[in-house]
Amino acid sequence: MKRVLIANRGEIAVRIIRACQARHIQTVAVYSTVDRDALHVRMADMAICIGPGEPQESYLNQARLISAAQVMGADAIHPGYGFLSENAEFAQQCIDNHLIFIGPTPETIALLGDKAAARTAMQNANIPVIPGSPRLTDVQKACQAASNIGYPVMLKAVAGGGGKGMRIINGEEEMKQVFSIASEEANAAFGNAEMYIEKLILKPRHIEIQVLADEHGHVLSLGERDCSLQQYHQKVIEEAPSSIDVESRATLQQLARNVTKTLGFRGVGTLEFLYCAPGQYYFMEMNTRIQVEHPVTELITGLDLVDAQLGVANQEPLSLQQSDVQLDGHAIECRVTALAPGRVSGLHLPGGNGIRVDTALYQGYMIPPNYDALIAKIIAYGPTRAIAIRKLQVAISETVIMGVPTNLDFVDQLIHNAKWLDNQFDIEFIDEVVKNRRSHHDTSNVQTSVSSRIVSGTK
Amino acid sequence: MKRVLIANRGEIAVRIIRACQARHIQTVAVYSTVDRDALHVRMADMAICIGPGEPQESYLNQARLISAAQVMGADAIHPGYGFLSENAEFAQQCIDNHLIFIGPTPETIALLGDKAAARTAMQNANIPVIPGSPRLTDVQKACQAASNIGYPVMLKAVAGGGGKGMRIINGEEEMKQVFSIASEEANAAFGNAEMYIEKLILKPRHIEIQVLADEHGHVLSLGERDCSLQQYHQKVIEEAPSSIDVESRATLQQLARNVTKTLGFRGVGTLEFLYCAPGQYYFMEMNTRIQVEHPVTELITGLDLVDAQLGVANQEPLSLQQSDVQLDGHAIECRVTALAPGRVSGLHLPGGNGIRVDTALYQGYMIPPNYDALIAKIIAYGPTRAIAIRKLQVAISETVIMGVPTNLDFVDQLIHNAKWLDNQFDIEFIDEVVKNRRSHHDTSNVQTSVSSRIVSGTK
Repeated sequence: MKRVLIANRGEIAVRIIRACQARHIQTVAVYSTVDRDALHVRMADMAICIGPGEPQESYLNQARLISAAQVMGADAIHPGYGFLSENAEFAQQCIDNHLIFIGPTPETIALLGDKAAARTAMQNANIPVIPGSPRLTDVQKACQAASNIGYPVMLKAVAGGGGKGMRIINGEEEMKQVFSIASEEANAAFGNAEMYIEKLILKPRHIEIQVLADEHGHVLSLGERDCSLQQYHQKVIEEAPSSIDVESRATLQQLARNVTKTLGFRGVGTLEFLYCAPGQYYFMEMNTRIQVEHPVTELITGLDLVDAQLGVANQEPLSLQQSDVQLDGHAIECRVTALAPGRVSGLHLPGGNGIRVDTALYQGYMIPPNYDALIAKIIAYGPTRAIAIRKLQVAISETVIMGVPTNLDFVDQLIHNAKWLDNQFDIEFIDEVVKNRRSHHDTSNVQTSVSSRIVSGTK
Repeated sequence: MKRVLIANRGEIAVRIIRACQARHIQTVAVYSTVDRDALHVRMADMAICIGPGEPQESYLNQARLISAAQVMGADAIHPGYGFLSENAEFAQQCIDNHLIFIGPTPETIALLGDKAAARTAMQNANIPVIPGSPRLTDVQKACQAASNIGYPVMLKAVAGGGGKGMRIINGEEEMKQVFSIASEEANAAFGNAEMYIEKLILKPRHIEIQVLADEHGHVLSLGERDCSLQQYHQKVIEEAPSSIDVESRATLQQLARNVTKTLGFRGVGTLEFLYCAPGQYYFMEMNTRIQVEHPVTELITGLDLVDAQLGVANQEPLSLQQSDVQLDGHAIECRVTALAPGRVSGLHLPGGNGIRVDTALYQGYMIPPNYDALIAKIIAYGPTRAIAIRKLQVAISETVIMGVPTNLDFVDQLIHNAKWLDNQFDIEFIDEVVKNRRSHHDTSNVQTSVSSRIVSGTK
């Protein structure tokens, strides 16, 4: 690979450009008209406009991306995350046009993108999936299935979505009362009365295993991340390692390696699980791309995952053995998001010992309204969780982003929450924090933050 | 310790404030009138003006610093580096005023600040010092001393300085020809004809050992740093580990620990050596404070040296054993300096995987003319020297500081120099680079740097 086109924008495009530069690989940025002044455009060796701001017309437009790669003489495409990163058709388009797609094969992407197929593949590899039933049309079969799975269960419409026809069921009596009502509701909403049952996973943690595999069948697992702090299904704070039990960790790593090898997977991938208790965890999905939260794994392993992607795409064998993978210390990432578009009129990012910032921001940058709200990742690393937390708290308190509203105050509250500090949280944590904040007057200890002092110069 | 006054400014004041915040210790910034808007003033919990811009009237004014600590209710003073950090009298003033001086005892500072006393202390600990003679007044004793030491030697005036009376002598014949001339020159210049001889150390590396000791006699050595890249006796680029031979490294670490323990030293200290070849190294001096280049040691050890200073001052025992100290990877620091004072009209600092920035800069900051030129430290870390170098090259290429002239272009040249890349350098390296640049037209491969693209948005 001599020249890589980065089919993405924002901080991940910057991240990929840096990794390419470190390998002396030339970079081609693509941009929509609203991203003309974006940092990734300025940092890349070359840049080409691929259309207007609407993602469908630019970052999601396969034909234009392929043409851009050809026009600019790129020999590979890195898709980043989001956009076309898990689009099997795009991966195939790359191959058909003699471009290296930096990711797994189209077949692997397609398989793991199909929820049912992925579920079957995992079951075949002895990986527990969320217990569920086949399609159901009558209440007796529903009761039988639910009793096999074990109450409480979630009753869902096969054609469903948006909560229509969905019910939490705690026992057989309730099932008998509710099944036909829910089924009728589903029929009214979707023209399909078929239902199915899934085990209700109560207050689990979101735990994910990072894997890395080369083209030669060599697979590594790189520890896990806890990404339970989510809002609107978006991760907000991620950390590594998680606090799951040692045995589950070992088992999950082994299972993840096994299935990665069996699938002939190559590149970086992430198996996402719901974790309830020692030995109780359920596969959700496997992502076939670099994740937003990959830096926490990089900090505790000392590896460079984007560089590893480039190496694998370059057909290099992984030089590490599993026993070389040492997990040291603790890393925590905060996703800083813009709550509205606008111009960054002032910017002061944290630094110093144990602080990493991944961002595409610069002072004067105009955040366009068209894309993901993520504008910066602030990551703290320390020998223990407690030290990483303190470093993160200090770093967040120093961070100043003026001109656009951000979630920084919210993040600051989360990382001072007593339960979170005490490692007591699950995927409902943020919703509960928000609910409590709404129901009580916010009496949290509001001090003059460092950042407000940095801006104002007052004490 | 509940409240620490930081008797310093700039990036090290910021560094210390962060370390205090991580320990929930309150911070008091001091500032001169020209530093009213400095970042350390804004970041600290409290701040107090201690005088005008001239260092003698503010950061070097012991009485005002002690008063400031008393007025602000501080119970400890961190001196940083430079200014009063190695002033035994100030350390004693702190003690006399019931303030904890974050550093060694005044006695230790005084001993190690006295060149002759420090030399004797090291000799007593079997640490090689630069071989030298006593005072000499006649050529025959000079010949005898030089032959004991071994040619080539440096003939120096006892009362000397500025090169007056100084000669490199390659053999006895030359000594006989030169001694009386040099001695007369010394007499003319300083009114003192006494001479002495030191072994001439040819093209050595500057190697320094980091030590850390608590109040309870527990001593750790934390590897070494190579700081050979210096200009005008100022270090420009530092790295850890160095490339000295394994045996010398082990011996130097052991000797450094021994003498640190023997001296009853506490806190962080650095033993500086000239290193010529395996087994050939000579003690120069021991610094009794945190060094500018401490981050490279932090990155390869995973330790926080400023936090360790706070812990030691708090009488905490070090929890690590020497065998727990593992050196992993490679770290390189560049000192970014302002070549003139001025307002920072634009600022873009690098980030991402393996990049640490320690700075007190912010966009709009007015760099005053009164102090040290250091404005930022950009530090890269990677598993190998080659990878750390590439990360550093990328990071420097991204860095934009507008409004003031800096040494960034010069640093960029140094870190692309073929000899430096090949680990072929000594303390004369930068002087030779500068000389070559003057004698030849600079035909180095000038590409459009990333930073100029970041500023201009052009390709």
